[in-house]
Amino acid sequence: MATLWTRGIQVCRSFSRLCTTPTVQRGTAVRLMSTENDNLQVDVDSKTGVATMKMCRPPVNSLNLEYLTSISIALEKLENEKCRGLILTSGVPKIFCAGLDILEMYQPDVERLQVFWRSLQDVWLRLYGSKMATIAAINGHSPAGGCLLALCCDYRIMAPNYTIGLNETQLGIVAPFWFKDTICGVVGEREAEHALTLGIMYSTEEALDIKAIDKVVPQEEVYTAAQEKMKQYLKIPEVARQLSKDMMRRENVEKLRLRREDDVANFKNFAVRDSVQKSLGMYLEMLKKKSQQKK
Amino acid sequence: MATLWTRGIQVCRSFSRLCTTPTVQRGTAVRLMSTENDNLQVDVDSKTGVATMKMCRPPVNSLNLEYLTSISIALEKLENEKCRGLILTSGVPKIFCAGLDILEMYQPDVERLQVFWRSLQDVWLRLYGSKMATIAAINGHSPAGGCLLALCCDYRIMAPNYTIGLNETQLGIVAPFWFKDTICGVVGEREAEHALTLGIMYSTEEALDIKAIDKVVPQEEVYTAAQEKMKQYLKIPEVARQLSKDMMRRENVEKLRLRREDDVANFKNFAVRDSVQKSLGMYLEMLKKKSQQKK
Amino acid sequence: MATLWTRGIQVCRSFSRLCTTPTVQRGTAVRLMSTENDNLQVDVDSKTGVATMKMCRPPVNSLNLEYLTSISIALEKLENEKCRGLILTSGVPKIFCAGLDILEMYQPDVERLQVFWRSLQDVWLRLYGSKMATIAAINGHSPAGGCLLALCCDYRIMAPNYTIGLNETQLGIVAPFWFKDTICGVVGEREAEHALTLGIMYSTEEALDIKAIDKVVPQEEVYTAAQEKMKQYLKIPEVARQLSKDMMRRENVEKLRLRREDDVANFKNFAVRDSVQKSLGMYLEMLKKKSQQKK
Repeated sequence: MATLWTRGIQVCRSFSRLCTTPTVQRGTAVRLMSTENDNLQVDVDSKTGVATMKMCRPPVNSLNLEYLTSISIALEKLENEKCRGLILTSGVPKIFCAGLDILEMYQPDVERLQVFWRSLQDVWLRLYGSKMATIAAINGHSPAGGCLLALCCDYRIMAPNYTIGLNETQLGIVAPFWFKDTICGVVGEREAEHALTLGIMYSTEEALDIKAIDKVVPQEEVYTAAQEKMKQYLKIPEVARQLSKDMMRRENVEKLRLRREDDVANFKNFAVRDSVQKSLGMYLEMLKKKSQQKK
Repeated sequence: MATLWTRGIQVCRSFSRLCTTPTVQRGTAVRLMSTENDNLQVDVDSKTGVATMKMCRPPVNSLNLEYLTSISIALEKLENEKCRGLILTSGVPKIFCAGLDILEMYQPDVERLQVFWRSLQDVWLRLYGSKMATIAAINGHSPAGGCLLALCCDYRIMAPNYTIGLNETQLGIVAPFWFKDTICGVVGEREAEHALTLGIMYSTEEALDIKAIDKVVPQEEVYTAAQEKMKQYLKIPEVARQLSKDMMRRENVEKLRLRREDDVANFKNFAVRDSVQKSLGMYLEMLKKKSQQKK
Repeated sequence: MATLWTRGIQVCRSFSRLCTTPTVQRGTAVRLMSTENDNLQVDVDSKTGVATMKMCRPPVNSLNLEYLTSISIALEKLENEKCRGLILTSGVPKIFCAGLDILEMYQPDVERLQVFWRSLQDVWLRLYGSKMATIAAINGHSPAGGCLLALCCDYRIMAPNYTIGLNETQLGIVAPFWFKDTICGVVGEREAEHALTLGIMYSTEEALDIKAIDKVVPQEEVYTAAQEKMKQYLKIPEVARQLSKDMMRRENVEKLRLRREDDVANFKNFAVRDSVQKSLGMYLEMLKKKSQQKK
């Protein structure tokens, strides 16, 4: 995975001209929401009202400002179009999503850094607070922000032999309170503390054991298993399901809404610390070395 | 179970003249608190101070206004009599309690609808907030409000081959926040969200697996197992046990106390929605058809 | 264990001249912080920055005012010295820590009673809120306050064939809200309620099953397993680990800080109740009898 990350870093700036006005179309059986670089494929099955959002930003679906903005806009459109369900998955081999693009945080432009963080907040508010039934079809590794995307969903199905976890502390950074609220809501306080303080990357099997994920199926069945589970959600009267989900999550959503700018300021002040920049620098250096050793 | 529900609907108005002044008597070894229709049998063992409340309202112990009122009054009396423990069980074959009487919510008289909801709040406040040690001897199916009664208890023992769950969303309605708080306190946030959004009915074995219940014993041993567990509670100095329970539950109890009328208004406004009435109507229709097919 | 407790009571006043100015020294490979009676051995490995605090107050490491004060001061010093980790263990055979010295609560001097309670609050605030990575190496029985010390740590490793639990209700007393918050954070609300209301003492195996502890290893490997786990914590960049832990625990810490004097008053008023004094008296009497029977 180190190699993949490194390659991610090498190329991640090259996708900066992402389409920022993705469109979601419905009406025929299946239509495609295509983006300029096809790095976020959104298909809506107009018969079921279920969207599939496939992250296709090689090498590791890392989340930079432009990509987060694309995801956020796509989520907003799906919500506006009254889609009933969303399956989130990856089109990149062996990677679900590697999380935040570290180059957004390393030696950053402070203005962009804050816009970047707000775009991440937006994605969380839209995905965690979605009215849609959301299922993560985790078909690859899923560290940090990738894990967060999965934890935001209503249900998580994962293929074997991958890893998942909020490993921020391993990089010397800290998951914000809304990451913490999200993981606490899935695995409970004890496991969340253990996971966050140690930045643990769990194997698929370990993740199932602590209930960070709900189901394990073979790689080739992850997407169909997600579709199967989605049928169960679709059978439930829409308003009742939405209100029940909202009842569970509203408090956490409101908390971030109320503290957004404080959270941006906290992140900015933390990220620009010498010690954090040093940590990130060392991490990038390590990845580069590992990558070179491999060549 | 569908058949049972239907039969419940067919007969449920016939018990409306329930005794509203049940009396709990103590002094001899075992005395009976009898109600006019014997549909709520309350026995108190005067040696141990343990009451048994047996729901005997065929066919499915459905909770209409009068029955909720009877339960509430009985709970109040037991509390006033300083009973130390309560075993809640059913005298109806294969049904613990089928939950709220849907006819209270379908095409309702709006005044009665609000009184009905307050009576449910009363039962919850008294059972969930009881000073008594409370054990549910779940000897039959336990959907919706029946599941809630069980979750309010301190301990749950269930017979195999039944089902239990807060399946409100399946009927197009939504469990109120205090149902949610109750189930969160038992199975945690993650399982509660899954259970509530999908309205899952768990088998006995599945319920044990997610810790919605504490123990499974054969049907014929459910009540004696409850008595056995009760002995463990009775060994604990009374005040210390009560204060410890109160410490765990006070916050949730206070929350409902503070928001009772808002909660009544929310329920009323939701229940009279066209979409909800339509859902309930379709559900009733489905039950009737299933019942007729069976005849 | 009853015998041990009794012996604890017989001797517990004899350690009252505890050193109140323990010193922590670093610089060489391993230095000892010795107290007057050597009943609290604190060693700091200057290479790793990991301290080991060994409770050596025979017969049962019971927590009286002086001992709590020693622990509190030692924790403060370790924190000030920027120790990175703490392993908490026992030097007394078969006992991790038997909890609060009951003689502090039985027929108490009311002034001292309140100072005693504040010293317990201090230990909790320092241990639960510690910036250090803390691991309990539970090499003996751990009832009541002993269990609390273990639950305050970041990780718990326990030897087989011992017992652990917040058994306060069995003695007729009640764990305060911050004990409750601590155990809820480890085992969740449901298990916490069951544990607290019944004052359950769990076997090592049961404790693992409800996740009150994290790992079971043979008696002779408990300490080395703690050292091994500590290495995992030490690999995490310090500030990120500390901030993540603080994020999980700050709310509970703040709650006690805000309510300290209320909590002292509550405890005092409860402890001096006739019924509580009677319970404690009966408990002490029972221990004495058991002890005499054994002789």
